[in-house]
Amino acid sequence: MPCAAGIHSLNGNGELTGRSWIEESGSLTLPIGITNSHAVGAVHAGIDEWTQAAHPELAAEWLLPVVGETWDGYLNQINARHVRPEHAIAAIESAATGPVTEGNVGGGTGMNCYGFKGGSGTASRVVVYGEREHTVGVFLQANFGSRNELRLAGRPLGRESAAPNPYEDAAWFVRDGERARVRGGSGSVIGIVITDAPLLPGQCEALARRVPLGLARTGTSGSHFSGDIFLACSTANAGAFTSSMPVTPVGDQPYESAEFVPWGRIDPFFEAVVQATEEAVANVLVAARDMVGRDGHANVALPHHEVCAAFATS
Amino acid sequence: MPCAAGIHSLNGNGELTGRSWIEESGSLTLPIGITNSHAVGAVHAGIDEWTQAAHPELAAEWLLPVVGETWDGYLNQINARHVRPEHAIAAIESAATGPVTEGNVGGGTGMNCYGFKGGSGTASRVVVYGEREHTVGVFLQANFGSRNELRLAGRPLGRESAAPNPYEDAAWFVRDGERARVRGGSGSVIGIVITDAPLLPGQCEALARRVPLGLARTGTSGSHFSGDIFLACSTANAGAFTSSMPVTPVGDQPYESAEFVPWGRIDPFFEAVVQATEEAVANVLVAARDMVGRDGHANVALPHHEVCAAFATS
Amino acid sequence: MPCAAGIHSLNGNGELTGRSWIEESGSLTLPIGITNSHAVGAVHAGIDEWTQAAHPELAAEWLLPVVGETWDGYLNQINARHVRPEHAIAAIESAATGPVTEGNVGGGTGMNCYGFKGGSGTASRVVVYGEREHTVGVFLQANFGSRNELRLAGRPLGRESAAPNPYEDAAWFVRDGERARVRGGSGSVIGIVITDAPLLPGQCEALARRVPLGLARTGTSGSHFSGDIFLACSTANAGAFTSSMPVTPVGDQPYESAEFVPWGRIDPFFEAVVQATEEAVANVLVAARDMVGRDGHANVALPHHEVCAAFATS
Amino acid sequence: MPCAAGIHSLNGNGELTGRSWIEESGSLTLPIGITNSHAVGAVHAGIDEWTQAAHPELAAEWLLPVVGETWDGYLNQINARHVRPEHAIAAIESAATGPVTEGNVGGGTGMNCYGFKGGSGTASRVVVYGEREHTVGVFLQANFGSRNELRLAGRPLGRESAAPNPYEDAAWFVRDGERARVRGGSGSVIGIVITDAPLLPGQCEALARRVPLGLARTGTSGSHFSGDIFLACSTANAGAFTSSMPVTPVGDQPYESAEFVPWGRIDPFFEAVVQATEEAVANVLVAARDMVGRDGHANVALPHHEVCAAFATS
Repeated sequence: MPCAAGIHSLNGNGELTGRSWIEESGSLTLPIGITNSHAVGAVHAGIDEWTQAAHPELAAEWLLPVVGETWDGYLNQINARHVRPEHAIAAIESAATGPVTEGNVGGGTGMNCYGFKGGSGTASRVVVYGEREHTVGVFLQANFGSRNELRLAGRPLGRESAAPNPYEDAAWFVRDGERARVRGGSGSVIGIVITDAPLLPGQCEALARRVPLGLARTGTSGSHFSGDIFLACSTANAGAFTSSMPVTPVGDQPYESAEFVPWGRIDPFFEAVVQATEEAVANVLVAARDMVGRDGHANVALPHHEVCAAFATS
Repeated sequence: MPCAAGIHSLNGNGELTGRSWIEESGSLTLPIGITNSHAVGAVHAGIDEWTQAAHPELAAEWLLPVVGETWDGYLNQINARHVRPEHAIAAIESAATGPVTEGNVGGGTGMNCYGFKGGSGTASRVVVYGEREHTVGVFLQANFGSRNELRLAGRPLGRESAAPNPYEDAAWFVRDGERARVRGGSGSVIGIVITDAPLLPGQCEALARRVPLGLARTGTSGSHFSGDIFLACSTANAGAFTSSMPVTPVGDQPYESAEFVPWGRIDPFFEAVVQATEEAVANVLVAARDMVGRDGHANVALPHHEVCAAFATS
Repeated sequence: MPCAAGIHSLNGNGELTGRSWIEESGSLTLPIGITNSHAVGAVHAGIDEWTQAAHPELAAEWLLPVVGETWDGYLNQINARHVRPEHAIAAIESAATGPVTEGNVGGGTGMNCYGFKGGSGTASRVVVYGEREHTVGVFLQANFGSRNELRLAGRPLGRESAAPNPYEDAAWFVRDGERARVRGGSGSVIGIVITDAPLLPGQCEALARRVPLGLARTGTSGSHFSGDIFLACSTANAGAFTSSMPVTPVGDQPYESAEFVPWGRIDPFFEAVVQATEEAVANVLVAARDMVGRDGHANVALPHHEVCAAFATS
Repeated sequence: MPCAAGIHSLNGNGELTGRSWIEESGSLTLPIGITNSHAVGAVHAGIDEWTQAAHPELAAEWLLPVVGETWDGYLNQINARHVRPEHAIAAIESAATGPVTEGNVGGGTGMNCYGFKGGSGTASRVVVYGEREHTVGVFLQANFGSRNELRLAGRPLGRESAAPNPYEDAAWFVRDGERARVRGGSGSVIGIVITDAPLLPGQCEALARRVPLGLARTGTSGSHFSGDIFLACSTANAGAFTSSMPVTPVGDQPYESAEFVPWGRIDPFFEAVVQATEEAVANVLVAARDMVGRDGHANVALPHHEVCAAFATS
């Protein structure tokens, strides 16, 4: 069932496949996969394969899966092809409603954020809209930012941290046979905004364009070495925004229709995106745990006591 | 009353003000002005002024008029400020339904097209849509193309014409005190597509993106010295796509709604745009008349007998 | 002399004319004008007129002036046409190097920002680049944000301020004969980034895309009622990025050439934009002064003692 | 070695991965793969794998392969996963200079074009540029257009053909258990423009935007069911447009530099793209051969004698 959808890049140094289609039609139909940079092909193939089995009626036409990625080659053997199509299928089949696990999980397992251990994170806001309520949820696969930049509510938690930062400080990156340090800020962040508020595709795009505002509150200036790509979807208007090939003449119901929040009343949804994004970054950093990965590479989580201390003193 | 709207440039070497707003909101409210390149400010001011008088409720907020231009400095004293705000106001007030005058008229008065006299032109198609009909109209201010390129239905009417071509052949253009020839193909074309079919903003943009296909059938390759900008609007869905500032709480009708042609049934509208654009170019060339302008500069219309002869022989 | 240039909107609810051309060619030639929303036409005409007098060689071709605007109708009689073309000409002719006056000045005179008196502001950063230095300057015409949102370095200076906020709290906005309050956050912000670092057009656009990150640090979530449009230019590579019509054959120097910072070394310039933007907002708020405007409408500046107190206590 | 690159969609109903990166950086480094719609993941994985083996220094960072697709499910068992990563690797390793095979070959094997057998096609133009020459080549994987639309040099070769058209006329498409006909015009076309002329990224994008003009000369109006995506690259400026992560301080050569054709002299390159695209469509149709594919599905090539006859009579 298609959703209205819009996309925005702060920094296109990354991949979110299916982009041309989302920009053309303003809609999204298939599951979204987010993985590591060198598993895009495997996850793309997996979504194709799952759709062929689970929705053969869709697979009679073309499939344009949406697969995003961030780079985890510090902790993960990224060239070892550990992720295969069947993992994408298993992930789709195990999807369930309810709380989303955060931190070192799923595509976020090997990620780093602001020089600390990063990963997956989510947050949401409820917008009271007349007598109704709508939810705006943000999911991040957070692998961006340099230690020096991190601030939460104005506290410079990165610069003042006593935690080691081997990701940025150790010379683990091999270039031309020499070991070197990576640039702080390299990585990427994929952000997915989902709401049940009825929105037009262009309004979804406007929501996607607010994700960087939430990220910016946590300090990032959007390093070139980070692919910062954001997708927003509205699950309302079931049955609209279709684009499958018609095989019958135009009939009694020749048009689709959709409801949408008037542009003049959209500000609370923008605020919800910015706030939920800011909180989702905090949630990534608090939920992540220390990790030792390939070749002894390690990273540490943002120490919880440093967070408590920073906020206690204010 | 807002219309859904979308915009596309083949070549951004021109101006259509209000572009940021159309791309943001997918809507259009005020009259569209099309003039010569150095009268954009005057026409912009005129639309503001007219709106302040005729629609003070709109002028309480900001106004983002849409003004396009093409360059007529070969025939017109373009720096003489002949066009003033009151001309824009008079044009709006004299707008009427019914046949549109074509050729050497309005903003198109001093324009050239494929090395012949150009100007304004229009054409439309009716799309039978189930038991209904929708009209797709295209209006061009045509000031583009070089003589050598022109073809109509495959006939090389430009290359084979015996008519003189002083616009491209005479050294009338002054650069650094020297007289020189202009590049063939310089000029610009503004295209406006209006339909009563209900469309989403993104669908309007897709229609705008088909205008170059119709132009291409007449031979142009889109010279850099031509600003080729296209705007498509759908007049359906009256009352939707508003964005004025709400001054009341969310009430009983919290959403706007819109109908739209499903993407899967949009092809006939694309074909209508391409065909009507191609015909509008022909109409410009056939409706235009020989003209002598500033400093003795002259241009000739496409000779009708050459057109007749070309099609008689096939 | 053309500059490399790039443009970005957080929110297209505003105007920056010349956008199509900047996006096409990645360059900018004429002076940039920034004014109030209903003076765009006058300033556009003024830049045309100035160019015709001062640079007749440019006015032999078409002119695509860049004019931005923000809305000052609370303090200013915006429909009274106080700004005329000659004011734009006078502004260009009085342009000088040296410190830029900030606050209630020029286009910024009647603006509001975060519910306080707003206006013009600027800040810059020097990027040490090998043995060289490059400057990145940001200029804002700041008329955005709601009082509730303002934070500086994490301090909620807006929410905690004791200063009155008649712009957002008084029912001064007339709609359908009734007085109402405007939406907080309405307004707009135009941001201009200028650097002497050599950059490609796409790199300028990337710089423009960082301006919202700096704004976001001060709290805004980018209200729909704000046109937030940003232009970045690089003044290096004098003589490149031309697009005037050639009147001679391709000669001995058939290509233009340009130097540019490699993408891999651009991060410090991104940081400079974010930091200078954040500081420019602070400078607007500190430089602005209380003002009484049309019909007794008034606004107050951010109280300096509140700023001092907020930072003293931390 | 990066090339300058730009991308454009007439119709985003298709996939070209790596789009965000090309739009961000204006450059392209890895081989381009073009395949069928459901093999995008396999080819993406194959390009990753090849790069890891052949260019481990690149695979130390992230890889953003460019993979395009068109849909061949009429003739091919598109869901059978016949294309595997090793086929992409073999294709890259067998790439060679010299004439390019056209018609039923490579990714184009199972494609249809204007209701005839389609496939791969290419054409080029030499632009004399002062004392130099530059080549502009266009490659198409052509799977677009309906029979009724086809025209070559104005001749309605499709409408007047006596050849059967089972792709559009037979009810082979299964929807909800019923057999139906597909929409004429469904398919897709990927177009790749390569030139040795030195160009800026924005100029490459302008070249990509001319591909639809060449297609339009052959009749298409760009069906919604066609993903029409175009990529243009300039191979000049070896060593520029890099974006790998620097591991050394800014040194003696802190900037990259590039030469480029001035915008004012770019028109002959636009004409070359339009002409070569038009010819490449003709070449596809003439080079393709009748084919019988899966489940007895067949298509016929444009009859050569019909082409000869159409042009003989003029």
